[in-house]
Amino acid sequence: MKARIDHIAIPVDEPKVAVGWYIENFGATCLYVDETWGLVEFENVKLAFVVKSQHPPHFAFEVEHLEGGTLHRDGSRSVYKRDPWGNLYELVKYE
Amino acid sequence: MKARIDHIAIPVDEPKVAVGWYIENFGATCLYVDETWGLVEFENVKLAFVVKSQHPPHFAFEVEHLEGGTLHRDGSRSVYKRDPWGNLYELVKYE
Repeated sequence: MKARIDHIAIPVDEPKVAVGWYIENFGATCLYVDETWGLVEFENVKLAFVVKSQHPPHFAFEVEHLEGGTLHRDGSRSVYKRDPWGNLYELVKYE
Repeated sequence: MKARIDHIAIPVDEPKVAVGWYIENFGATCLYVDETWGLVEFENVKLAFVVKSQHPPHFAFEVEHLEGGTLHRDGSRSVYKRDPWGNLYELVKYE
């Protein structure tokens, strides 16, 4: 079964400004934003805009089963892993 | 209107091996692969695995209207631009 990609995190210096820019230019909807990261929704996938020093660039797969992981404030749990080429990816499960 | 993200290009050293790895681990379907890049489809979006020296990492929005741009072999046309934070993005129109 094909996995679903939940979001991709892109590095920016100013998440709040970036969120505004992507809303204005690509009709994104803001789901969350603070000084260190923002999350916007496009038609088929979300992009996160992250301050690189605090949130590393990555992409995230939504999974149905996840052992352990870190519990986030929104009720999701996730783990970070690296593919064989060093790219960071996240597995996220929404409760 | 929310834009649709067509694909995100992720740097890897070995596109053919990467395509195989993402098929095996995440059920992706291969749409194209050669020595310099590969394209796989997930449930909601595509990922491209690119040799960094030949294809820069980027993300692509599908658009309905595009002036000019480069015509590709699959009939699509596209232009590359940078957001204010230096991230490379592509606008792609399928004929």
